[in-house]
Amino acid sequence: MIIIGERINGMFKDIARAINDRDPGPVQEWAKKQEYNGAHYLDINVGPSSTEPVEAMKWLVEVTQEASDLPLALDSTKYDAIEAGLKLCKQPAMINSVPAEMAKMERVFAMAAEYNAEVIGLAMNEEGIPKDADMRVGLAAELVATADAFGIAPDMLYIDPLALPCNVAQDHGPEVLRTLREIKMISDPAPKTTVGLSNISQGTKNRELINRTFAVMAMANGLDSAIADACDDELMAAVATARIILDMDIYCDSFVDVFKQRNR
Amino acid sequence: MIIIGERINGMFKDIARAINDRDPGPVQEWAKKQEYNGAHYLDINVGPSSTEPVEAMKWLVEVTQEASDLPLALDSTKYDAIEAGLKLCKQPAMINSVPAEMAKMERVFAMAAEYNAEVIGLAMNEEGIPKDADMRVGLAAELVATADAFGIAPDMLYIDPLALPCNVAQDHGPEVLRTLREIKMISDPAPKTTVGLSNISQGTKNRELINRTFAVMAMANGLDSAIADACDDELMAAVATARIILDMDIYCDSFVDVFKQRNR
Repeated sequence: MIIIGERINGMFKDIARAINDRDPGPVQEWAKKQEYNGAHYLDINVGPSSTEPVEAMKWLVEVTQEASDLPLALDSTKYDAIEAGLKLCKQPAMINSVPAEMAKMERVFAMAAEYNAEVIGLAMNEEGIPKDADMRVGLAAELVATADAFGIAPDMLYIDPLALPCNVAQDHGPEVLRTLREIKMISDPAPKTTVGLSNISQGTKNRELINRTFAVMAMANGLDSAIADACDDELMAAVATARIILDMDIYCDSFVDVFKQRNR
Repeated sequence: MIIIGERINGMFKDIARAINDRDPGPVQEWAKKQEYNGAHYLDINVGPSSTEPVEAMKWLVEVTQEASDLPLALDSTKYDAIEAGLKLCKQPAMINSVPAEMAKMERVFAMAAEYNAEVIGLAMNEEGIPKDADMRVGLAAELVATADAFGIAPDMLYIDPLALPCNVAQDHGPEVLRTLREIKMISDPAPKTTVGLSNISQGTKNRELINRTFAVMAMANGLDSAIADACDDELMAAVATARIILDMDIYCDSFVDVFKQRNR
């Protein structure tokens, strides 16, 4: 599974302060730390309170790239900020994210085609997040079809079925797992899949336990990637183990270390 | 998920010695300990070296029932030993196990019908364990059909797709997960499913990590029960968490304790 490291995000106080003070230290430390712990992409989010998201995104992209060669996932609802970031990315990036709403898809898929970017597509639209798997799969199909119209292959898309906190929307859990499985039948090649892993445990005790359990259950249903905490050692060990069970990496006695050290 | 506690088994030295000396102490301690930790059934196996399996099974069943009211899973390839045990069981038991071989199925399903016992059916026959899911599902269907001829409903069966060690038969992992999913489509009601959990990690380092990761991945594909170590706290926590994610138990902050203390 591909781990998109979640930590360079202005919702964390140290990153918010770093952006505000234009202090590259915390950003670059987290870039290196996440890479060291096995992240494959670095998510870049200026945070909800940024008053100048375009400038903040440009700065974050530049200082992150000084510290790490990992590809970036540009994470914003402000598409101008994403576009400004894409112009600076040294290698193809990921756009995080677009819902199945036509105007937004048109904007995002046009950018993705221009910058050869992958795209996270959310299984939601103007009406919100559907209650069941069938509706989520329907929205995933809309994302695939619209991307195709822009010349974007299905496997450049990462469909996020949108996991919800298990303490308030528990009935969504089985639906999300079924969505992951059925998304793989939409097209050939199939779209890839992703989740914002920590959503499943928002507001619960035992957050790490719930996160890593959900991660491997989702992998057993076709999950390809997750926006997650690459520095959660037990999560990374669980993911490495699931890859062995799914026959995605060759078993050796030190398979956990091998998975985490792949970037080094 | 239903946990069939694996520990009263003559392959463990303390149990082998207890059987040999007719010392109920270790057997009853493990009975109580497994029940306390959340087991739902207790597996009873006289071990591979027993020279008098019928008498040993009778003794084990009696001393176990003195210590615990949990239902028993009588685990032997010697059907005379299973039958002798069934006669002594105070409540309906489980027969562990029968392969998809006609003579054995006839013997076991006749016993199961007589004693109202559940049966673990193995997805293997005279030719061994199949390489892929399709063949395993085919054998599961034979088990369901033969059971039906003896008046045994599909949901009295627990089909075991037979997990193999991930360090030597890694390609079986995805096939076992697919088998679990497809078994649920054989009949209505569907048969239940089980695995001998520790098989997946035989001969590996990180046995507990592999066991608990496989357990929840299998649950996400329809696994109903496992013969497992009920005293592995991290396994039980993972199983409790998977039940929350699958919306099988209602979330509360102490869901792990609630799962484990259900028997108390």
